[in-house]
Amino acid sequence: MSSFDNNVPTKFPNLEPRGPAGELLLAQERAKATFDVNQLSKFMYGEEWLNKMDKVLDVVSNEPAFDKTGRYYESREDKIANGFKKDKRLVELVKEQKWDETETSIANFLYDQSTPFTLHYNMFIPTLRSQTTDEQKKLFLEPALKHHIIGCYAQTELGHGSNVQGLETTATYIPETNEFEIHSPTLTASKWWIGGLGKAATHAIVMARLITNGKDLGPHPFCVQIRSLKDHRPLKGITVGDIGPKFGFNSVDNGFIMFDHYRIPHVAFLAKYSQVKQGSGEYVKPPNAKLSYGTMVFVRANIVMGVRYALAKATTIAVRYSAVRQQFVDAANPKKWDNKVVETPVLDYTMQQYRLLPTVAAAYACFFTGSEMIRLYNLNQVEMQKGNFGLLADLHASSSGLKSLTTTMAAEAIEDCRRACGGHGYSLFSGLGQFYQDYLPNVTWEGDNYILTQQTARYLLKTYRNVVAGKAVPSEYNQTVTYLTQYLENTKAKCPVTTAADFNNPEVILAAFGFRAAYGIAKVAEQIDNQGRSWNSMLVEISRISRAHCQFVLVRTFIVALQNTNLDKATVSVLRTLATLFALTTMEKELSEFLLSGYLNADQTAMLKEQVITVLEQIRPQAVALVDAFALPDYYLHSALGRADGNVYKAMTDMAEREPLNHTQVVDSYGTAIKPLIQAGQAAGRWNEDGTLSAKL
Amino acid sequence: MSSFDNNVPTKFPNLEPRGPAGELLLAQERAKATFDVNQLSKFMYGEEWLNKMDKVLDVVSNEPAFDKTGRYYESREDKIANGFKKDKRLVELVKEQKWDETETSIANFLYDQSTPFTLHYNMFIPTLRSQTTDEQKKLFLEPALKHHIIGCYAQTELGHGSNVQGLETTATYIPETNEFEIHSPTLTASKWWIGGLGKAATHAIVMARLITNGKDLGPHPFCVQIRSLKDHRPLKGITVGDIGPKFGFNSVDNGFIMFDHYRIPHVAFLAKYSQVKQGSGEYVKPPNAKLSYGTMVFVRANIVMGVRYALAKATTIAVRYSAVRQQFVDAANPKKWDNKVVETPVLDYTMQQYRLLPTVAAAYACFFTGSEMIRLYNLNQVEMQKGNFGLLADLHASSSGLKSLTTTMAAEAIEDCRRACGGHGYSLFSGLGQFYQDYLPNVTWEGDNYILTQQTARYLLKTYRNVVAGKAVPSEYNQTVTYLTQYLENTKAKCPVTTAADFNNPEVILAAFGFRAAYGIAKVAEQIDNQGRSWNSMLVEISRISRAHCQFVLVRTFIVALQNTNLDKATVSVLRTLATLFALTTMEKELSEFLLSGYLNADQTAMLKEQVITVLEQIRPQAVALVDAFALPDYYLHSALGRADGNVYKAMTDMAEREPLNHTQVVDSYGTAIKPLIQAGQAAGRWNEDGTLSAKL
Repeated sequence: MSSFDNNVPTKFPNLEPRGPAGELLLAQERAKATFDVNQLSKFMYGEEWLNKMDKVLDVVSNEPAFDKTGRYYESREDKIANGFKKDKRLVELVKEQKWDETETSIANFLYDQSTPFTLHYNMFIPTLRSQTTDEQKKLFLEPALKHHIIGCYAQTELGHGSNVQGLETTATYIPETNEFEIHSPTLTASKWWIGGLGKAATHAIVMARLITNGKDLGPHPFCVQIRSLKDHRPLKGITVGDIGPKFGFNSVDNGFIMFDHYRIPHVAFLAKYSQVKQGSGEYVKPPNAKLSYGTMVFVRANIVMGVRYALAKATTIAVRYSAVRQQFVDAANPKKWDNKVVETPVLDYTMQQYRLLPTVAAAYACFFTGSEMIRLYNLNQVEMQKGNFGLLADLHASSSGLKSLTTTMAAEAIEDCRRACGGHGYSLFSGLGQFYQDYLPNVTWEGDNYILTQQTARYLLKTYRNVVAGKAVPSEYNQTVTYLTQYLENTKAKCPVTTAADFNNPEVILAAFGFRAAYGIAKVAEQIDNQGRSWNSMLVEISRISRAHCQFVLVRTFIVALQNTNLDKATVSVLRTLATLFALTTMEKELSEFLLSGYLNADQTAMLKEQVITVLEQIRPQAVALVDAFALPDYYLHSALGRADGNVYKAMTDMAEREPLNHTQVVDSYGTAIKPLIQAGQAAGRWNEDGTLSAKL
Repeated sequence: MSSFDNNVPTKFPNLEPRGPAGELLLAQERAKATFDVNQLSKFMYGEEWLNKMDKVLDVVSNEPAFDKTGRYYESREDKIANGFKKDKRLVELVKEQKWDETETSIANFLYDQSTPFTLHYNMFIPTLRSQTTDEQKKLFLEPALKHHIIGCYAQTELGHGSNVQGLETTATYIPETNEFEIHSPTLTASKWWIGGLGKAATHAIVMARLITNGKDLGPHPFCVQIRSLKDHRPLKGITVGDIGPKFGFNSVDNGFIMFDHYRIPHVAFLAKYSQVKQGSGEYVKPPNAKLSYGTMVFVRANIVMGVRYALAKATTIAVRYSAVRQQFVDAANPKKWDNKVVETPVLDYTMQQYRLLPTVAAAYACFFTGSEMIRLYNLNQVEMQKGNFGLLADLHASSSGLKSLTTTMAAEAIEDCRRACGGHGYSLFSGLGQFYQDYLPNVTWEGDNYILTQQTARYLLKTYRNVVAGKAVPSEYNQTVTYLTQYLENTKAKCPVTTAADFNNPEVILAAFGFRAAYGIAKVAEQIDNQGRSWNSMLVEISRISRAHCQFVLVRTFIVALQNTNLDKATVSVLRTLATLFALTTMEKELSEFLLSGYLNADQTAMLKEQVITVLEQIRPQAVALVDAFALPDYYLHSALGRADGNVYKAMTDMAEREPLNHTQVVDSYGTAIKPLIQAGQAAGRWNEDGTLSAKL
């Protein structure tokens, strides 16, 4: 037997990829842009934020606890361990670097992976901030802010998610000892999916049915200690652990917990809004529940802003790679380089543009809509303080539907972008696979996307009935009333388009989206109110009207924002074309709804399709610059395909060299699984002394 | 400090889930079915196959190397090691159990995870079977069948996938030594994505550009030894390894390989079809290339049959869980159990039915279409032997488009089913997450799904021109000609439906699908032939006509199969309703294409939507029985949610107990990441001697 050193890592030979090089191709793309990329970035993020990002990036990209090079090779256990390492180090860095809240959030944004402490910051602390008395703030919030306790938020149960009223965990007031007894009566009462609970948390906000004086008052929040501060051991009466591997999000210890007649002090009941009186156990109701709707709007507006990042990341990777990746020679329009015919970058194929560029446009649409929702949220908070709840209903309805629509869009877009990267999209090195998996919970949490559309639809139907009854007047802040009123003025309206280019007109676009939404709402109202159809049998149409309304909001906000901007002309011109692309491809996707009402006819549809191709051609030269403007650093993307320098193939091979299986020449299983089989071949005289196959047989 | 035994696995308390129990709910569902589930299973698989499955199942489910209990907790390294273990054991089992080819394939089907040897069986051996001379069969095929060598199939390169003609690896004939020199001239020439190459293979079929006498003859296959049979070390001149982690398929060692002027003997050139003469290097062309199209049809027909399993697995899990999972009380129609109002199983909600039942129908549609394609493949093989190539073009075109359409459908359906399982769908224990990831390569391999539609569309356009020119006549074997002819007879035809129930008529359905496909083809032909639109600018419409044609094929095959079956009436009646559901929901999804042509009007669309809801209601009681008929054993599904006994929550908690993080009470990172933070709290007097938070502050 020959002997050799097995522990020799595999190295690629020092060869270049076939040209033209990615770097040159991207430079060529960037030279085509007709607008100033940096100006657009500044417009989107603000100069201050971009400066902070540079500063934080410089720290985290040189920080071992934030190193991403091992990310795609990690086991579940590695992910959790590295998550804890990053959490601990972040606490130190915030102090060392004197980071403010924005800078800290940028560090988390760049690291781009949730960790065991994520819910401590995102749910535990905010809940303690908003739902505690001053005494409770001292007791729970202060140590939480100092990381003297680590918390999570335990609402969902094994048997109940969306239906919060169906939760089974109980908290019974015991007047004799002035305590609550937390109890899990069944297996399905186990809290489940709770981020940070599996291994990290010492405390949990537990949503449990408050029972006092024999009355069940439904779910209320309690701050419950679950592990010892001394040795982290689960306290007596508690069964707690990790719920196991998930499709994504495996860097978080989502956990379960069950309580066996577990006693907690009276002070654990979060008493900012409702109270249980000591001794008597008398329950005091919370004041106006509407105030809490504001918070939901805020959370959902932030999810829409998050959608923008998701779309931006996915399209940055896919667009850059599509400019570098060449496949086939387009015979009708061959590409030349150094006077030789070379293969065509896939971004030049209409189908690839059709797959990617509308998503770039959607990313911008979500940026404008997210910003507008945050503006309206702030406006509404001020108005509510004054006792004016007039904005709330429309804002709440739109935010529910937009959360549903845009997160579904984002999840689909990430996966579409991954597939648009061809085979290499399937490598984790693309940066898109794990990203899809980690993004997905957004379609379920903060309201299941299907259920949310019912909230939006209820509001739309109610508004329609009000408009019909003459009880609602159009206003700047209620576009729903406006488009419903316009529809009712002429329910037989027709799209005025006579040439393809007419579809560039924002008025035409808005009228079409408004009419289509109103028509759908009117039809559903008719079926429910006049034809006696049940809500359940209408759920499919109900989700459609929510979508129609929210697409109107996205399109309108994008268009209106460009009418009132201080951006330079060249940039506005490109963004207008992008808004048109977003609107027209959305129309095309939902075509049947525009046709059904008779608003659009077949000839106009042909023009619409023609115009989509025209607009794709107009956006094509701006594509790389438009994703560059998202200003996402390579450290954040962590993608071999999406690198700013276009050096795709070198990045792929570098990352492959890091694969642990390549650290040895011969795989561990060789001795047990391969050798015995092949040895039988030697016995049969199959091979030569040097290990080559014998040609003798 | 207290001391305790940390190595105590976490156990759930012995509690039952809140009732009614899943078992009872599923029994109730099964009692509703109006047909015999076993009869339907036998019809689909044949009794012999089902008996073989029982036999093989009994072996593999008791075989440690086939144990799945650890599957969802495995790291990449575990997956590879377990894959090798299974591969080795399978070789033994085949001998021990005297399994035939069907039984062996059932064992692989049940194990349901590709392994390092998968490509040895699926690509290496079939290629050696079909492309070698007798001498080469002795030299390569015989040892491969005995596992004395292990092979893979190396075509794709880092820089080239779909464009096979663009491959860079060269194989230059050296007359002096009667050898070929395999060489990778650039980094992008590296073979990439090659299953089994990373760590397992000793040999590879390498597709390389044949260069002889200075002429580049394009890619040809070579059988190349790459690792020593003595010690498995890569041979000199070869750089080989694993390409790293992927989105799925991580149990396979997809690899890369680069050649540095690597010499192989003349016999390595696979010479069944074309030859290179020894010494002179003269190239002899292959005979009729059309013969190889037959193989592609076969591979694609099998992929369509595979789609059926994918849809069957996804819907079995989602439908059973939806019958067990209860959420909210449907106020309009409250469900009672033991005279008490209980929450409603989500399968009773129209939206859930709309999300799942069309996919059940699609699974059956793919079964009938897959079977029919295999029948036509066999028929065509016989005809081609007789020199009749008349069936080939239509069959090849349909198989390309169907592969594209159905694998895309399947990938979407798996993900839709996963999301329809709510939060728990995101747990790997659902069985749907990893399944989606592992299924995905199907949309890329054997022809990228977007590119394939161009092949189908080219044929459709050509046929259209022939029909217009009167050069094609309708026949039983060419439905394309039939529907195009009918369309041209009356291009202004209208759908004859006047009541919702009219949509149950198979004639009505087929006419609608035929008209819609023909209309689309005619419009594209007009734009390309008369308006001078380029192929590239038409790619979006081109993919649409391929889809329209293939949806026609799926719908027609389903309907026709039920007209000529020996199944009992009760079963046929249910399947007919299912075929209607498939057709109508497909129409609804593609509604704009039926509207655009003017074939369908707005009133008929309202009837269509009404009829969809009616048919969903009709299928609803059959739902669980219809997925039971897929006869997929629990071992195969490996899903907590999809179990045949409905004991969902116990399965979830059992699987959570196996999570490695739950084998200890306190996580490893506690000492480094959590303790230092919390200890600072103790220093501040934050907690009591017993580890509870102090209320003093």
